[in-house]
Amino acid sequence: MLLLHLSDVNEASWAEAFAKALAPYPVVRRGDDFDPADVRYMFVWKPKPDAFDGMSGLEAILSLGAGVDALLKHPNLPADVPVVRFVDEDLSQRMSDYVVAHVAMHHRLYTRFRRDQKARRWSQLYPPSASQSTVGIMGLGVLGQDAARRLAPLGFTLRGWSRTAKTIEGMTCFSGAGSFQDFLQGTDILVNLLPLTPETTGILSYETFRALRHGQLEGGPVIINAARGGHQREADIVRALGDGTLGAASLDVFEVEPLPPESPLWDLENCYITPHIAAISDEKSGVRYFSQIVRDHLKGKPLINVVDRHRGY
Amino acid sequence: MLLLHLSDVNEASWAEAFAKALAPYPVVRRGDDFDPADVRYMFVWKPKPDAFDGMSGLEAILSLGAGVDALLKHPNLPADVPVVRFVDEDLSQRMSDYVVAHVAMHHRLYTRFRRDQKARRWSQLYPPSASQSTVGIMGLGVLGQDAARRLAPLGFTLRGWSRTAKTIEGMTCFSGAGSFQDFLQGTDILVNLLPLTPETTGILSYETFRALRHGQLEGGPVIINAARGGHQREADIVRALGDGTLGAASLDVFEVEPLPPESPLWDLENCYITPHIAAISDEKSGVRYFSQIVRDHLKGKPLINVVDRHRGY
Ligand SMILES: NC(=O)c1ccc[n+]([C@@H]2O[C@H](COP(=O)([O-])OP(=O)(O)OC[C@H]3O[C@@H](n4cnc5c(N)ncnc54)[C@H](OP(=O)(O)O)[C@@H]3O)[C@@H](O)[C@H]2O)c1
Ligand SMILES: NC(=O)c1ccc[n+]([C@@H]2O[C@H](COP(=O)([O-])OP(=O)(O)OC[C@H]3O[C@@H](n4cnc5c(N)ncnc54)[C@H](OP(=O)(O)O)[C@@H]3O)[C@@H](O)[C@H]2O)c1
Repeated sequence: MLLLHLSDVNEASWAEAFAKALAPYPVVRRGDDFDPADVRYMFVWKPKPDAFDGMSGLEAILSLGAGVDALLKHPNLPADVPVVRFVDEDLSQRMSDYVVAHVAMHHRLYTRFRRDQKARRWSQLYPPSASQSTVGIMGLGVLGQDAARRLAPLGFTLRGWSRTAKTIEGMTCFSGAGSFQDFLQGTDILVNLLPLTPETTGILSYETFRALRHGQLEGGPVIINAARGGHQREADIVRALGDGTLGAASLDVFEVEPLPPESPLWDLENCYITPHIAAISDEKSGVRYFSQIVRDHLKGKPLINVVDRHRGY
Repeated sequence: MLLLHLSDVNEASWAEAFAKALAPYPVVRRGDDFDPADVRYMFVWKPKPDAFDGMSGLEAILSLGAGVDALLKHPNLPADVPVVRFVDEDLSQRMSDYVVAHVAMHHRLYTRFRRDQKARRWSQLYPPSASQSTVGIMGLGVLGQDAARRLAPLGFTLRGWSRTAKTIEGMTCFSGAGSFQDFLQGTDILVNLLPLTPETTGILSYETFRALRHGQLEGGPVIINAARGGHQREADIVRALGDGTLGAASLDVFEVEPLPPESPLWDLENCYITPHIAAISDEKSGVRYFSQIVRDHLKGKPLINVVDRHRGY
C-alpha cells in the first residue's frame, strides 16, 4: 500500500488523486485504519519525527520535493530504504521561467532604471546585448541544464559549474572546488541551482561575491538564488548589496522561511524577494510521475531518480 | 560622396568610421567644403528643415533609425529619392532582450511580489507556467519576428498581428483591422512593435486595453510598448493602470520625449519606464551595414530595405 504523509499541503487532495491513478492499489493517509507493516511506499513532505515508526515493509520513500536536504536530515529516516525525488518537466519549466525573468531583468539594468524613474530622471544608458553578459550557473543537474537550455537561445554567454566534469554544448563547463574561482571570475550574473549539502552550505558568501566579474554590468554583478536558503549567508548579502560588491540579488529562498519581518533584506531596493515560489511541485504532474514509479516498481522495474545518500543529493 | 547629417549623436565619430570603411570614397559632414550637387548618399538622423536643400544628385537617403515615421514627415524630404532604413541583427537582439525581460518579469507577477516585499509580507502565490500565458505581438516585421523567435523556446503561447496575412511556425497569426479584436481577446501580455503610421497612431487606447484577456494573469493584462510614443494614449494608460483594466505597463517610448517631469506615469508603481533605450543603432553595426549598401549600389546593385512611402514603413 501507499501511505501519504504530507505537511503544509493539501494531503486529502493528493490522496484522492493517487487513489484514482493507482486503483485498485490501496492508498492511505495517517489516521486511516491500516497496519504499518503493510506500507510498501511512502509519499512524504516534511515528515514528522515518528513518520517512519513501524514501517517494516517499506520499499521506497517518495519525496514531493525536488530537493531532499531536509528529508535526509530526518533523525529516523530508514537507512536502507531508497529515496526517490521529484523530477518533472513542469517543475523545470517554472524554475526556468523564474531564472530567465530575473537574469533578463538584471541584464537590462532594472534597478538603475527604477531608481531613475523614482527620481523622474530621463537618463539614457544602453544595456549590453545578451551576448556581452555572462551567466554562470552553479549546479548543472536537471534544473541547471534546463535553465541553460532556455537562456542559450536568448543569446547569453553561458558557463556552468558542477561536481563532476561535464560537456554541454554552448556552455563553458567548470567542475570541482578547484575551479570555482575560475568559474566565478568570468561571471556577471550568478545563478544558484545547487542541492544543499555540507559542501554547498553557505557557498553564497562575501568571498564568492568578491570573486565575481566586476566592471562589466553597470552597478555590479548579480546573484540569483532559487535553490536553498542554506546556500546563502544573508549578512554577507546585505553587506555586499550595500557596498557595491553586488549590484543586485534575487532571492527566492532564505536561511529562515518565512523570511522574518525584521530581516534587513526586505528594505533593500536592490534585493528582489519572492516567497519560495520559483517552482512548485504540481499535483497533477506529481501524481502522474509517482504513480508511474509505483506501478513500474510493482512490476519489478528498478526505481528512477534515486538519491545518493552519501553524496547528499 | 556620402554626407552625414546627424543630430543628437556623435556625428564626428560616425564620419570617421564611414571614411575608413568606404575609403577612398569621399565622406563629408555639414560645414565641410563640398558642392551639394555632388552628394549621392545622405546618412541622416533628425535632419534639420534645410537638410536636403540643393542636393540635386541624391540617389539614396540612409536612415540611422529603424523607424522612419519622423523622417517621412520631414517637410522637404525629396519625393523621389529612396529611403533605406536600418535593419540589423545587433539592434534586433537588443530589442528582443528588452521584450523578453519585460514579458518574463510581468509573467512572473513582478508587481505583486514587489508590493508584498515593501509590506514585508510573505504571501505565496505560484505564477502560471510560460505556456499558460499568451503573448500577443503587434507587428510581425523584423523586430516582431525576432522577439517571437526568442520567446518561443521559453514556452510562451504566442500570437501575432500584422497588416498582411502571415504563416509563422509556433504562432497563431492574425491580420488586418478586421481581426484585431480576435487577436486582443486571447492576449495576456501585449507587445507593440508596429511602425508609426496614420493607421497605428493611438492604437494603444483604453478600448484596446479593455479588449485584452482578463482573469488569466493575476492583476490584469499587461502592455509593453517599445515602438513609438505616438502609438500610445498616455491618459488612457494612466486610467487603465489605475482602474485594473491593465495590471502593468512597460513603456520605453512616450508621446513627448524626454517624458516631461510632470507626467503622472512616473509615479505609478505598475508602470515601468525606460528612457527610449530598448534598442540602439550601434555605430559599428551601422557603419558595416550602410557601407555595404553604398558599395553595392555603386556597383549597380539594387538598394535593400527601402521604405514604402505610401504604406508609411
Ligand atoms: N526554489 C524552489 O522553488 C525550488 C524548487 C525545486 C528545487 N529547488 C532546489 O534546486 C536544487 C537543484 O535541483 P536539481 O533537480 O537540478 O538537482 P540535481 O539534478 O541533483 O543537480 C544537482 C547539480 O549540482 C551539482 N553539485 C552538487 N554538489 C556539488 C558540489 N559540491 N560542487 C559543485 N556542484 C555540485 C551536481 O553536480 P554533478 O552533476 O556533478 O552531480 C549537479 O550538477 C534542489 O536540490 C533544490 O534544493 C528549489
Ligand atoms: N524603442 C526603440 O528603441 C526602437 C528601436 C528600433 C525600432 N523601433 C520601432 O519598432 C518599429 C518596428 O520595426 P521593424 O523593423 O520590426 O518594422 P517592419 O519590419 O517594417 O515591420 C512592421 C510590421 O508592422 C506591421 N504593420 C504595419 N502597419 C500595420 C497595420 N496598420 N496593421 C497591422 N500591422 C501593421 C507590418 O505588417 P506587414 O508584415 O503585413 O507589412 C509588419 O509586420 C519601428 O517602426 C520603430 O518605430 C523602436
